[in-house]
Amino acid sequence: MGHKRNVKLVIAYEGTAYKGWQRQNNTPTIQGTVQAAIQTLTGNLVKLAGTSRTDAGVHAAGQVANFVTDTIIPTESIAQALNGCLPQDIVILSASQVPMDFHASADAICKLYRYRIYDAPTRPVELFNRRLHVTYPLDVEKMDQAAQLILGQHDFAAFASAKDKRETTVRTVLKCQVRRIAQHEIAIDVQADRFLYHMVRNIVGTLLDIGRGRWPVEQMAYILASADRRQAGPTIRPHGLCLQRVWYEGEE
Amino acid sequence: MGHKRNVKLVIAYEGTAYKGWQRQNNTPTIQGTVQAAIQTLTGNLVKLAGTSRTDAGVHAAGQVANFVTDTIIPTESIAQALNGCLPQDIVILSASQVPMDFHASADAICKLYRYRIYDAPTRPVELFNRRLHVTYPLDVEKMDQAAQLILGQHDFAAFASAKDKRETTVRTVLKCQVRRIAQHEIAIDVQADRFLYHMVRNIVGTLLDIGRGRWPVEQMAYILASADRRQAGPTIRPHGLCLQRVWYEGEE
Repeated sequence: MGHKRNVKLVIAYEGTAYKGWQRQNNTPTIQGTVQAAIQTLTGNLVKLAGTSRTDAGVHAAGQVANFVTDTIIPTESIAQALNGCLPQDIVILSASQVPMDFHASADAICKLYRYRIYDAPTRPVELFNRRLHVTYPLDVEKMDQAAQLILGQHDFAAFASAKDKRETTVRTVLKCQVRRIAQHEIAIDVQADRFLYHMVRNIVGTLLDIGRGRWPVEQMAYILASADRRQAGPTIRPHGLCLQRVWYEGEE
Repeated sequence: MGHKRNVKLVIAYEGTAYKGWQRQNNTPTIQGTVQAAIQTLTGNLVKLAGTSRTDAGVHAAGQVANFVTDTIIPTESIAQALNGCLPQDIVILSASQVPMDFHASADAICKLYRYRIYDAPTRPVELFNRRLHVTYPLDVEKMDQAAQLILGQHDFAAFASAKDKRETTVRTVLKCQVRRIAQHEIAIDVQADRFLYHMVRNIVGTLLDIGRGRWPVEQMAYILASADRRQAGPTIRPHGLCLQRVWYEGEE
């Protein structure tokens, strides 16, 4: 047995085949699958603390998690060794040693989610589980103007799922941007200190209603101020959502 | 009931969730799924004749099939109506009326398959079922030189699966090209009049052995001339393969 170390992992996954991040009995989840790989590799039965409990069908390009191990395997070999124990739709991008008191979730300063929309008459079969397909025209500029209206610290109760039982619904949105990034691809980036349950998917549902002309741009501000979930747009399906990156103290 | 018509469909699909094209009882296949959608829409129990019996896990950007129907639904509405009855990973790109004696498979002049390889140290989780991931360096120029050596009419027995029971293994390869089409993406295009069972996957397996330096370029000609399956490289996995297009008389 080696010295006890706290190891931080950066993980990417295609979420289609999993019932989300959080471990459940007899159900494939990302946390359960990575914990099993760590146990295979190190012999340690660990609790892998993740930054974000992504929902079923949600993807990640930069989920962060940490675990404590006494394995003699050097930290610089852990990513490659774990990848050998993991299925093809999960990959450890990096493993690094962090202070023993580092906690992936509690220490996160902010997170960035990206929701991607494919807008064209024909659905993209090769991306069917990674994009929201819309056939109606979207006014991207109006969506981006509406997105600006939720920047800053607010009560985001209007965009929280009723299932969210956290004590406060006040959050700080650092960035909310809507841009066309390819001919048929629109990206909605939302960066915040923390997120409420379904918050990004509810914001996207509301922006889509504005983009298709159901509501004017200013409706976004009224909805936010109402703090009433029933005023906002629908919770949009998870397939287009990806946890892009998590920031910690000292990272730019 | 309307007049009897022969309808040609161009179909794209993400093959991951299906056991290939050909209908089987109690197993999801592309043919079975599209036939069921046609029955739902038209009431006609049809036999959908496809150009290519793609294997489990193989994709299509332009599979062609035809069926005879007496539906009163106009031909120009069939694609959109069928798409409403199909799952998200199958899409009808077009439907058109063709002469009653048109047969998608027998009348095909040639077909183009593309095999795509992702070469980078880290596997691409978002493409895990659409690319072959390789971590070793590949000499794309040598692969392309080797690819040229199988152009023309030859006995392709060396690249045929033992399961292939067709009377002749002579085929004409019109194009065989290896190119880098993106930073980490290599495309292998093979166009031929007809294909033997596993022919593209066996050609790709052999080209990979040449690209990684196991064999010199000229080995490709020796293998072809041997007409012996044991001389060629391995049958590569299906995930990277896509039926791109089928050509008929009068198409350029």
